[in-house]
Amino acid sequence: MVLERHPQNPIIRPQDVQPTRPDFEVIGAFNCGATLFNDEVILLLRVAERPKEVIPGVVRCPHLNPHGELTILEIPRHDDRYDFGDSRFVLNRQTGELWLTSISHLRLARSHDGVHFTIAEQAWLYAEQTLESFGVEDARITHLGGQYYVNYTAVSRYGIATGLACTTDFESIQREGIIFPPSNRDVVIFPQKMNGMYVCYHRPMPGMFGGYHIWMATSTDLKHWGEHRVVLEAKPDGWESGRVGGGAPPIYTEAGWLSIYHAADRHDHYCLGAFLTPHDHPETIIRISREPIFSPQAPYETEGFFGNVVFTCGAVAQGDLLRMYYGAADECVALAEGSLADLTASLEAV
Amino acid sequence: MVLERHPQNPIIRPQDVQPTRPDFEVIGAFNCGATLFNDEVILLLRVAERPKEVIPGVVRCPHLNPHGELTILEIPRHDDRYDFGDSRFVLNRQTGELWLTSISHLRLARSHDGVHFTIAEQAWLYAEQTLESFGVEDARITHLGGQYYVNYTAVSRYGIATGLACTTDFESIQREGIIFPPSNRDVVIFPQKMNGMYVCYHRPMPGMFGGYHIWMATSTDLKHWGEHRVVLEAKPDGWESGRVGGGAPPIYTEAGWLSIYHAADRHDHYCLGAFLTPHDHPETIIRISREPIFSPQAPYETEGFFGNVVFTCGAVAQGDLLRMYYGAADECVALAEGSLADLTASLEAV
Repeated sequence: MVLERHPQNPIIRPQDVQPTRPDFEVIGAFNCGATLFNDEVILLLRVAERPKEVIPGVVRCPHLNPHGELTILEIPRHDDRYDFGDSRFVLNRQTGELWLTSISHLRLARSHDGVHFTIAEQAWLYAEQTLESFGVEDARITHLGGQYYVNYTAVSRYGIATGLACTTDFESIQREGIIFPPSNRDVVIFPQKMNGMYVCYHRPMPGMFGGYHIWMATSTDLKHWGEHRVVLEAKPDGWESGRVGGGAPPIYTEAGWLSIYHAADRHDHYCLGAFLTPHDHPETIIRISREPIFSPQAPYETEGFFGNVVFTCGAVAQGDLLRMYYGAADECVALAEGSLADLTASLEAV
Repeated sequence: MVLERHPQNPIIRPQDVQPTRPDFEVIGAFNCGATLFNDEVILLLRVAERPKEVIPGVVRCPHLNPHGELTILEIPRHDDRYDFGDSRFVLNRQTGELWLTSISHLRLARSHDGVHFTIAEQAWLYAEQTLESFGVEDARITHLGGQYYVNYTAVSRYGIATGLACTTDFESIQREGIIFPPSNRDVVIFPQKMNGMYVCYHRPMPGMFGGYHIWMATSTDLKHWGEHRVVLEAKPDGWESGRVGGGAPPIYTEAGWLSIYHAADRHDHYCLGAFLTPHDHPETIIRISREPIFSPQAPYETEGFFGNVVFTCGAVAQGDLLRMYYGAADECVALAEGSLADLTASLEAV
């Protein structure tokens, strides 16, 4: 395997992160966007919190109410209109309405060595509007034209959408609205224009029918997207049979753009794969990993909040050194390192 | 009821339409876009066809193969990997893969009186690419800047998406690609820019969770869309409890933009409603119908291929006369007429 786990993994755990309020506890610090900023590695962690106080027989669901205030809905476990089978959410069987049992925000962490991180004490981006009322998740950071664009999953009772924010200094933040309506996440934006257009990969989750594939879109301004087409499909069998989706924003190499993506099988066993596209043709995969480049093996990946998950939202390249930050078991942040050239060379021609 | 059924309804029936090939039969001519063009009313019908020859014990599913050729997949009814419960499609229970039992295209019809139509003998727009391999459906026509923009539902095994085409003369057609990825349909484009932007309503069908609501988006070029937000929600109960979606492209009136939309309850009983938005604020509904403005009542609406459906994709206003063309029972085209002022006045303040 080209990418080697760092000996200090996991490098960030939930207990390393201070909750945003004293009555909340952090249950996950994972799926982080990553970029180089000045001489530091910057991560935007997904921090998942839940109300600390446990009330026997009651499930508590944090969310923004219509006035934008953080509120906790309490649902008694004996209310048989609801399905409590998955601890991550509560489902109203009749209406299909869903509530999450935790709420996520984005948290800044910074490091000079890429391994030891100083984690901010408060949120960098917190839910603040209707389409984020269940939280904001899974940031990807793209450095483009002097700006850092941060796309993130905006979750609400309207579904799973993708929002965009923008910063130059990681202090002031400008929200740019919802760029993909539900259900769509795992958006990764290329750090350069191609053929005069901005380009991204995105991953619709179609209702009715249709699989969970990686699509491409173009834009003139990063806010309005079109020219949608399929780039990489989930497969009928094997490690990519449940879904594929963008992971780290594509990395420029001599050989082409390197994309590290995630895949899950029908049992929600998540792995990572990689593919290469020509410099001017992001729609055409020329080399790809036939087998996963990275699979859950370490205990912090196979066990935990949601075991058997490795999921990257960002990697940083310095010369030939690739540092891939990834969420392990939907609980903590881990790091794997390797040679960019070796990883690219390991891919097979399509 | 403001809108009165035309006495010659249904004005177009499947038997009025010639199939595109001798071995096919037309089973539906319905859900048509409508516009005024020179001194005629133009309709773009959805024409659904299926293979004529019936083979006992075999279900036949027309589609484009990966080479773009029209092909018929034959699935024996005794193959218990498949679910044949809904005659409109065949579902692979294991993979979730779906095949349609008919394929739709768009067909031009023209009329001087708006009632008697001459129907073209061949398709106006036929499936021709991967994302249309199960057919093209439900056109909406918007006259804008000297062009007629035709958006339509592009159906394939990748799901239900929305494509855009463009014409100046209804003869030459330019395809503009997929403007909304799956699952998204019922797109209606406003015939004017607002605040410097093109505007549409669209209707995502989110996978995972989230309802079937009407959303708004903006664009600088009609091909790339962003700034997504919710405009009208499906309701917990009643005639709008299953879904709402755009119907006819919005019509300019003195009082604001008039939108006729469709709604269905949880039993797929389809009705039409209407709302009004200010001239510069398509996101803000100021007046709306509390009850349906039009419901299935006539036999050609309550019975037929899929009964209890009235569904409009286009209406034409001449002075105060509103002519609403609508699909009845997913089978034929009908016409309802009324006063634009009366319809607008019937809406209640929000």
